[in-house]
Amino acid sequence: MPQMRQDAVTKHWVIIATERARRPERPAMPFNEPVSVDYKEDCFFCRGNEATTPPEVYACRMDNSDPDTPGWFLRVVNNKFAAVNMEEPFQINDKDLLHVSAYATGRAEVLIETHYHSKGPSKQSILEIKRVLKAYMARYYELSFDEDLKYILIFRNHGAVAGASLEHPHSQIIAIAEVPPNVQEELTGSKAYYETHQRCVYCDMLQSEIKDNTRIVYENKHYVTLAPYASRVPFEMVIMPKFHSSSYASIDEYQLNSLADAWKETFYKLDAGLNNPPYNCYIHTAPTQQNVDDFYHWHIEILPKLSIAAGFEMGTGMYINVTIPEECAQFLRNVEVVF
Amino acid sequence: MPQMRQDAVTKHWVIIATERARRPERPAMPFNEPVSVDYKEDCFFCRGNEATTPPEVYACRMDNSDPDTPGWFLRVVNNKFAAVNMEEPFQINDKDLLHVSAYATGRAEVLIETHYHSKGPSKQSILEIKRVLKAYMARYYELSFDEDLKYILIFRNHGAVAGASLEHPHSQIIAIAEVPPNVQEELTGSKAYYETHQRCVYCDMLQSEIKDNTRIVYENKHYVTLAPYASRVPFEMVIMPKFHSSSYASIDEYQLNSLADAWKETFYKLDAGLNNPPYNCYIHTAPTQQNVDDFYHWHIEILPKLSIAAGFEMGTGMYINVTIPEECAQFLRNVEVVF
Repeated sequence: MPQMRQDAVTKHWVIIATERARRPERPAMPFNEPVSVDYKEDCFFCRGNEATTPPEVYACRMDNSDPDTPGWFLRVVNNKFAAVNMEEPFQINDKDLLHVSAYATGRAEVLIETHYHSKGPSKQSILEIKRVLKAYMARYYELSFDEDLKYILIFRNHGAVAGASLEHPHSQIIAIAEVPPNVQEELTGSKAYYETHQRCVYCDMLQSEIKDNTRIVYENKHYVTLAPYASRVPFEMVIMPKFHSSSYASIDEYQLNSLADAWKETFYKLDAGLNNPPYNCYIHTAPTQQNVDDFYHWHIEILPKLSIAAGFEMGTGMYINVTIPEECAQFLRNVEVVF
Repeated sequence: MPQMRQDAVTKHWVIIATERARRPERPAMPFNEPVSVDYKEDCFFCRGNEATTPPEVYACRMDNSDPDTPGWFLRVVNNKFAAVNMEEPFQINDKDLLHVSAYATGRAEVLIETHYHSKGPSKQSILEIKRVLKAYMARYYELSFDEDLKYILIFRNHGAVAGASLEHPHSQIIAIAEVPPNVQEELTGSKAYYETHQRCVYCDMLQSEIKDNTRIVYENKHYVTLAPYASRVPFEMVIMPKFHSSSYASIDEYQLNSLADAWKETFYKLDAGLNNPPYNCYIHTAPTQQNVDDFYHWHIEILPKLSIAAGFEMGTGMYINVTIPEECAQFLRNVEVVF
């Protein structure tokens, strides 16, 4: 039967269209299985091509090499095509109610995850993943000192279909002067739940999901990967800390090992199970200038791009998902991880 | 300079990323310029292939031919792959707060706009377009009698990239048991404006846009096509009645002629100017069971799919638009319409 399901935090409904449901299966044809190469001469992000990017703002180097020269394992550079910049402070111009505007104040950075051209998250070692996760944290800290910037979004697009214009594994960091609506919805929903129940809605959900066990994809000591009850798209996943924590930037070294393991397992299952599908992935964490510690719970959302949001989705704001989250979770749970 | 702009009704911000702005230009390569054919043997929607669809619920015929036989000019059939159906009434099951669900009650229909396989809106005659617009109205009326169905979305997807799985020109009609969030946002925003100013926000906006004239794409006696001030995507357009009206279904014969003209001009400019781009299009009109006549103003939104909503958009709910709405409007305004 076709079912509607409501997200417990945002209250958004999705339609699980079982009538047209496709059972999860390994695609017969790979989507865009990359040929694995270490270096491409014309890649802006490969080691040796540092001159093609703006100057680096952060890097991991082991050999005391100079900035913007080879020798790095990970680099963060300003985004050459930044949608926001710091040339003017953020100030809303609302003199004309019908044409309210503001300067697009913010910072946009690109985090080059590895010097290897084809080594995405599922192929990176735990050490390499930890380097990425730590760099996320370092940039988050650095950017959070600017009081004009209210939110920092860390995200990664994988595959051209999902908007990745460059193949070389990279993440993006965009800091903006307003808390964006999708995050605000989560803050509002989790705060309301907290005020009624004096508990974190995400913690309650986790407890229920772990007990129920039908939507769990992977679990280790500190983290769980699950298919959300109200998944918007086929094979949607969320990685969440099992401990209550509002901010990604607050995790300690021990928890980081555990997150690197969950990260590796999750992306490996995704790539191996669905033949390297395109996806979008982002971290939802606390805004930088608000205390939401009691009720908010940071998490990573992964949205494979196997379907197209079309007229219905654009017109309503509701998603039609043609797969059943429990079946997606089971499928991914059963993908054997070999590394 | 990179600018943020706020939608006057929904209050959503978009980033107009002028740093990476592409000037509107006619693409060098056509996106998916169709080969024009009248009939395809394996097309479910071509005349003569009626047996491949569910039974028709509405049709325009001039020869007294029987339902589900050739002789029609336009057909509406139930969607074979409906995401919703009427097998159970809508009732929210919220016994478990973290797993709220409901039966996906609703109706899903496909409106085959013409028997010609390749004759989309920009190629249809005014008479053919009027037939489509009247059929929208007829189905809207019919579906609105069911009090369990609170909202009727009429939409069309064009091109595989925009989610159209079949090439033959068709629209879709989905009636659901809840007012969807994107419509609710418009209702809330326009109601708040009305309560403060005792005027319709859309009427005020239209007046300002017509006076300003920088974002107008086309205008006739009763309708205006414009590029919204806070356009989310390149070449976004809205067709709006210049007269205040909350419901699409209330327009009269005279206004319909005018709408058919605006429809033709708008889609012609889009197809001719941008080489038949993929797009999503939907009508935002009043919910069926609420009186919103004072403050709401129906309109048609057209979203060309020339860019990809990726990690930033999914994570924040904000759009980055790499074109300037005024330049898009000017470009489309200057596309000469020859028919």
